[in-house]
Order: sequence, then structure tokens, then C-alpha cells
Amino acid sequence: MNISQTVLDFKAYVERVNAIRQALYLFSWDMAVGAPKGGTASRAKYVGILSAEEFSMRVSDEMKGFLDALDPCGESLDESTKAMLRICRRDYYTYKKIPVEEMREYSELLPKAQSIWEKARAENDFAAFAPVLDRIIRFQKKFVEYRGYDGHPYNTLLDDYELGMTVETLDAFFKKLKEAIVPLLKRISALDRQKNNAGFIHRHVPIERQQAIARLLMKTIGFDLNRGMLLESAHPFTTNLGKNDVRITTRYHENAFLSSFYSVLHECGHAIYEQNKMDEIADTILDTGVSMGVHESQSRFYENIIGRSEAFWAYIHYGLMEILGDTFKDMSARKLYEAANIAKPSLIRIEADELTYCLHIMVRYEIEKQLFSGDFDVNKLPGVWNAKMKEYLGIEPLTDSEGILQDIHWSDGSFGYFPSYALGNAYAAQIFHVMRRDIPFESCVRTGDFKRIQEWLTETIHRFGSLTTPSDLIENLSGEALNPDYYIEYLTEKFTALYEL
Amino acid sequence: MNISQTVLDFKAYVERVNAIRQALYLFSWDMAVGAPKGGTASRAKYVGILSAEEFSMRVSDEMKGFLDALDPCGESLDESTKAMLRICRRDYYTYKKIPVEEMREYSELLPKAQSIWEKARAENDFAAFAPVLDRIIRFQKKFVEYRGYDGHPYNTLLDDYELGMTVETLDAFFKKLKEAIVPLLKRISALDRQKNNAGFIHRHVPIERQQAIARLLMKTIGFDLNRGMLLESAHPFTTNLGKNDVRITTRYHENAFLSSFYSVLHECGHAIYEQNKMDEIADTILDTGVSMGVHESQSRFYENIIGRSEAFWAYIHYGLMEILGDTFKDMSARKLYEAANIAKPSLIRIEADELTYCLHIMVRYEIEKQLFSGDFDVNKLPGVWNAKMKEYLGIEPLTDSEGILQDIHWSDGSFGYFPSYALGNAYAAQIFHVMRRDIPFESCVRTGDFKRIQEWLTETIHRFGSLTTPSDLIENLSGEALNPDYYIEYLTEKFTALYEL
Repeated sequence: MNISQTVLDFKAYVERVNAIRQALYLFSWDMAVGAPKGGTASRAKYVGILSAEEFSMRVSDEMKGFLDALDPCGESLDESTKAMLRICRRDYYTYKKIPVEEMREYSELLPKAQSIWEKARAENDFAAFAPVLDRIIRFQKKFVEYRGYDGHPYNTLLDDYELGMTVETLDAFFKKLKEAIVPLLKRISALDRQKNNAGFIHRHVPIERQQAIARLLMKTIGFDLNRGMLLESAHPFTTNLGKNDVRITTRYHENAFLSSFYSVLHECGHAIYEQNKMDEIADTILDTGVSMGVHESQSRFYENIIGRSEAFWAYIHYGLMEILGDTFKDMSARKLYEAANIAKPSLIRIEADELTYCLHIMVRYEIEKQLFSGDFDVNKLPGVWNAKMKEYLGIEPLTDSEGILQDIHWSDGSFGYFPSYALGNAYAAQIFHVMRRDIPFESCVRTGDFKRIQEWLTETIHRFGSLTTPSDLIENLSGEALNPDYYIEYLTEKFTALYEL
Repeated sequence: MNISQTVLDFKAYVERVNAIRQALYLFSWDMAVGAPKGGTASRAKYVGILSAEEFSMRVSDEMKGFLDALDPCGESLDESTKAMLRICRRDYYTYKKIPVEEMREYSELLPKAQSIWEKARAENDFAAFAPVLDRIIRFQKKFVEYRGYDGHPYNTLLDDYELGMTVETLDAFFKKLKEAIVPLLKRISALDRQKNNAGFIHRHVPIERQQAIARLLMKTIGFDLNRGMLLESAHPFTTNLGKNDVRITTRYHENAFLSSFYSVLHECGHAIYEQNKMDEIADTILDTGVSMGVHESQSRFYENIIGRSEAFWAYIHYGLMEILGDTFKDMSARKLYEAANIAKPSLIRIEADELTYCLHIMVRYEIEKQLFSGDFDVNKLPGVWNAKMKEYLGIEPLTDSEGILQDIHWSDGSFGYFPSYALGNAYAAQIFHVMRRDIPFESCVRTGDFKRIQEWLTETIHRFGSLTTPSDLIENLSGEALNPDYYIEYLTEKFTALYEL
């Protein structure tokens, strides 16, 4: 068979997989932004069928045929074919080992688990969630056994979200973070300066004004609304239907306008990544971010490194005041900057500040690692959670709703995902370190030249989409592998100055 | 092979087809309610692939295998299997003849055509739309040739929307309508009474109030918002993702509140049909209305037979006045009833009154018939359109935007669809004739007992979904085939009384 014809057939086949995947993304977007509640079960049925369809195409004999035919061609293939093959090969050899029936059973369990979790969280009833959580973990452990692993069994799951990531790397990574952050946090907590300026951020801001703020932010930092949109949902997220259709959501709290303010910046970071991939990979399976960690580096870059900088507050202050009117008249850019950077132990991850955020991730990382290293008793998890919160953050939740039940991720089986958030922060700081060699970051932000920052990120990160791998991307960009020192340095400098330690 | 196992396999296969179809409906809903413009081409690509996927499953060897295995079982199968087989058999033997590649190309063309049409209409530029319209028609003509036809080639397309419908039947049907409606309209046009009360319906009604009116109407007539939703789009429509997820749209004109008022009633008629099918067929390919004509009978029933009746205005007047406040304080229910029934030649089909509506359909029917009977020059269509408008309605559009460019349907390839609207009106009157034997329609409406009306329609029509055929449904319900006399009688009685002719 002619190789170039096989490449075409392979690409056409992968496009079919991708089209079903896009349909699944659309269903999931639709459900989050207001689909009728009464149709939940019906849509779950369609989604279940389409997921099975997509799954079976990824592990089909036809796929195997393409892999076998194209594998020997190796380096002679073009970059996009090679990248597609890498992804498909990994998929095939990973999932082929899981019996279809078990996968189906598991896929059907997840939407139910999510409903049970939602109810359990609302009613602070971990016991109601425990049995289904136990089932999910046992499924995942079985899948890891089928799939095999190097070193720690949890490595297999880490690798799903960040190619090549291991417990060995992360143990060292988190150890360094802990050693730097915990003492820094203690020094800040010993002060009582910040208590003075925390209150005003809870002043009432009507939703229409917060919508205007969202529009201001999107325009300012360059989220292209011709190829994107913003709606509301219970939890902010980004959906990527290819680089020309990238959608984000936020949610508005009338007495905490910074919540949506930073959600919008965060999701825009994801979205700007997706919108700026090269046209050559548009609408293919490569038309998506390269890994969860790298994706999170972009959202954190926009949310924290740009959005929580003093320069950004200096720039955005005027436009923001125009929208807020008299409510915040007495608030200087500096006061807002300080308010946006209050570092304080708290219970809820998604509301955590920049300094304490990774400690929340450590709690989850260590629990997940433990779950996959041997036997476990799901009923003991709340106790473990609370003890770790106490150890790293110095506070303990009073209820499981604001403790172990707070995150959706375990109910949808995403074990190995949480570390991406910490990796994202560390990547962002490493990227930032390199960026500042090339462009005058602070003066770009201070003068509103976000285009230049975006172009730099596009050149080094965005454009590649999934053509590359996370480790190659980071190494090509910075000349070294993931290095948490930049993140520690960034946090230490920022918070030492901010709190005049 | 065990027959009951084959039935199960067949149903599972059809469920897969249905899941892809639902994804396509969702893409189409999504595009109409605000998807980013820049993503049109990308979504068109996914839609093209998924349509081809669905299409190839409908004409696959596997499908042929099911048909061959189950056909000999005939009457011994349960009702739903028989209905599914009927639909799949028809699909298979119809579409097997169209090459997959051509179908795919065509499917990819349609979303682009829709964007072109939108722009052309906005800019009154038929020349911009003509080339893509030409391509669509040529595709459809080729498809008709592949598929074959009895009698007139257009019959094949008519049959797609209304099983068994032919040019022969419709020629006679429209002839009768024309002979009754044109003189009636002339007698009304000769009066000048209505000129006195036409103005107030253009008083300004802010969109928020019109949204409140929409909510009032949906609640009043029983559109279940737990299993449905209302959004806005350029052109009102209903999307059915199964009986538990039925979505409608409207559009608001600040100086013509009756436009959205009647759009909502119209789409609710479609939606109430979809929401009230029996649970046994939920989320299957039978979970949809039986034909376009029958569907339209339900929307017209709610829009016109209920919504444009004097009894309805008597009932809704109080609630409506509460929302409208002082603006319409001087308007009695009777005056609103008269205003909602002004019969007058007009240019725009979707804003046409009950009496002239079918004349608009005749214009389109005759053009479509002509397009499919021989060669055509797409550039001549505006002229043909205008001449026919002059002939039947006595008026001509000044621009193509309010002429041949006004409808979306040709841009999405729906040739053969327009007659359904006229059939819907005629079915509705025939259904109404029977309903009045069983329940006191007028007093139900006057007292707000829309539940009783809905239950009667559910019992005789809604619950069957696609378990039946349009002709069986109408015959079982009324004891006779489609008979336009009831419609003519209804119109004549209503407008003779209203205008005191």
C-alpha cells in the first residue's frame, strides 16, 4: 500500500474520532451553560453511546492497522502525522488493555457518581459518597493493573495528564515547594497588617457591571470574541472546539467581584492558548493544548503573573473605576493590588490565594498517591484530609463539604489530575523567567501592550498545540526541564516585598 | 440466529445512529443561539463528518443485514420495532443510492450556505447567495436522480417531509385553497375598517416585558420548562433532543410585540407535541414528530386555532395587561383579537396572517416544483418570485431581502419542506373539527383549561411520535384522509364573522 495514501486514510480516520470528540465537548458545554435539567438522563445516554463510539475507534483493529503500517516510516513522516501517531499509539496501547465491558461500566458509573457527589457535598454527607468513590478507585486501580506501570502504580495516571510525569519527580517537586512556602506563609500569618484592607472587596457590584468588567478584561488581554464567547456556569471552565471556537464561562458573586475578575483572566489564559495555535493543525486532534500542566501554566500566567501583578493593577485601574463608579472610588490601584494578593490559609482550593494554592494540591497529591500504592479504606479519607490540611495550612475544615467533598474531580475519576495545577504554577514561573530575558514584561503590562506578551507566548508555546510534548516544549523554551526554583523565587520575591517581610 | 437477539442488536445499532443525530441537532441548535461566528467553518467540518457518519450507518451493510433478517418477521414484531424498521428500510433504500462522498460534500456546504444567506439577506444581495443556492439545488437534483421518482421528480422531496405526498395531491389542494382564499381576501381588502385599529400593535414594548410575556404564554399553555428552554435566535425554531429536552427560540421586535407573542405560541405547539410522546419511545429514533405536516398542525393549532381565537384573547387579556402596564391600557380583548387577525397581503411569510399564509406557501411550492421539473436559471428566481407574489397577493417586494431572500430553508437544502406549512394548517383545521365533537374547546380556552386540550391532542397525536405514519394518524383520528374543506370552512367562517362580510 502506498504510504502517502495510508497517511491520508489515517488522518481521515482520526478526523472522524475528533468529530465525535467535539460533539462530546459540545454536549458537556451545553450541559454546563443551561441545558434543561429534565433532559439530563437522555443526554447522558447519548454521551455514553458517543463516548463508547469514540473509545472503540481509538482501540479498533483499523487503528492498529494504521499504527502497524506507519510505525516503520518513523522520521520520514511529516511533523503532524508523527504527533498524531504518537497520541494514537499511546491511546491504543493504553486502552486496548482495558476490557471494553469494564470501560463501559465505568463510563456509565461516572455521571451517576457526579450526581451523588453533588448531593453529598450539598448535604455534607461523605458516607453517601464513599461507596461510589470506592468503586471508582477500585476501577482505576484495576485499570492501572491492566495497563501496567513503571515504578509507582500512580505514575500511570500522572502520565495521562502530563506525559512522563512520575511520583519520583513530584515528590521532590512538592518537597521543595513545601520547604519554601510553609515558612513564608507562617511569617505572613504572624503579621496582622492585611486585616485592615480585606473588607472592601466584598462591596456589592451588580452583575451587569461585573459583565462589563469581564468584557473589559477580555478585550484588554486579547481574547478574540469572534472566535470565542463567554457565558455563565456554576464552575468556570474553558471548552475548546478547535482554535476558532473557544468558549469560557465565569460566575458572578455580587459581593465578591474579584471572583469573576480572576476567573475570567484564568479562563482567558486557557482560551488564548487555544486560539493561537498554528492554522496548520486547526480542527485536528492536535488542535488542543499539549498537556494539563502546560494548559494550567497559561491560565495561571494570565491570572497570577499578569493579573495579580502591581503593574496590571496600575494599568487596569482606570478602566475598572469607570465601570465600578463611586463604589470603589476610594480604592487606589495599590490597595486593589494588595487585596488581590492576600495570602492566608483557607479551606477551599479554588478560592485559595497564589501563595497557599500549591499546599492544597499537595494534600490531594499525597492522598491519591497513597490510594494507589496499596490497600485503602475510603472511610478513613476525611480524617487523612483533615490531618494534612492541619499540617500544611494550619487549619482544619469543620465539615466534609468544605473538606474532602469540595472538588468534583474524584467523582469523575480524574486521579492524577490535581498535580497539573501545581505544575502549571511552576511552569508559568519558569516561562516568566525566560520571557523577561526577551521582552520588558513589566512595562508591557503597565502600558497595556498585552499583544506583545501574547505574541511571545504564542511563538514559544501556543502555536504548537499538541504537535510537541510537554517536556520538549519546556526544554526548548527554557533550556532545562521543569525546575521549581523559579516558582519558589517568584513567590518569595513577590510576597516578601508585598508584606515587607 | 435468535430473532429476539437480532431485535436487540438492531435497536442498539439504531441507538448509535440516533446518538449521532442528536449531536447534529445540538450543533445546529448551538449555531443558531450564539456560537462564535469565527468557528462556523470548523463546526461545519465536524458536522460534515458526523453527518457522513450517521449517513453511512443508515446505508451500511450491517443495516442491510438487520433489514434482511427482520423483514420476514413482519407482524410478529412489536410496534416500536416495526416502526423503526419502516423508517430504517425507507432510509436505506432511499439513500443507499447517493454516494457517501457527495453526501458529505453536500453536508459541508450547508452550514457555509447558511452564513452566506444570512449575510446576503442582511445586505439585500441575492447575487451573493445565488451561486451557493445554485450548488445546493444541483446537488438535490442529482440526489433525486440517484434516488428515482414516481411521476414528478419533486415528489421524491415532498415524500421526505410528508410520507406519500405528491405534486398531484398538492396541485389539487392548493387549487382549492386558492379558489377560496383569494376571493375572501379581496372582499376583506375592499373594506377599510381594519385600518382604524392597526397602529397600536406597534407601540414600544421593551424586551424584558416581552420576555415576561413569553414566560406567561409558556406557563399558560403548558410548555414544561424543566424539560425545555427558550432562547433567542434570528429565526424562531424548535429543536428536539428527545421528549425530555425540547428547546425553542423566539426573537423580539420592540415595536411589534405580537411577533414574539405568536412565535412563542407557534414553537410551543411544536414543543408540546415533542414533550408529550409516550415514555416507551423516549430517546429512540421514534422520539420525534411523525412528519413535518403533522408537526406544523400542532404549531398552527397553538398559534392560530387557540392563539388567534377570541376566547384566547378573552383569557390572556388580564395577564398580558399586567405585564404591559399602561402602554396598552386602552386596548380591550376584542381590539387585540381583531389586531391579531388583520388579514392583509404582506411580504414576509413568517409575519403573514392566518388567511394569507398559504398564498405565501403557494409561491414557494410552485417555484420549487418548477426548479425540479427541468432546467433553471437561479438568477431568474427573484423575478419569478416577485411575479407570483403579485399574482396571488397583489403586492411585490421592493428588495430581495423581503422577497426571495427572506427564508432560511433553501440555504439548508430543505426543498419540499414549505408545503408542510400549508398541510399543517389544513390538518389543524381537520383535527379541530374532530376535537370539538369531544370537548368544549371554546370554554376550555376561555377558562384557561389548556390542559384538557393538550391531553386530547396527546391522546390522539402527541403520544405516538413516529410510531405511526401521517396518513394513518389523520385517518385514525378523523376517519378520513387529508381534506382541505375543513380548513376552508374554518377560514371562511372566522373571517366572514370577524369582518362582518
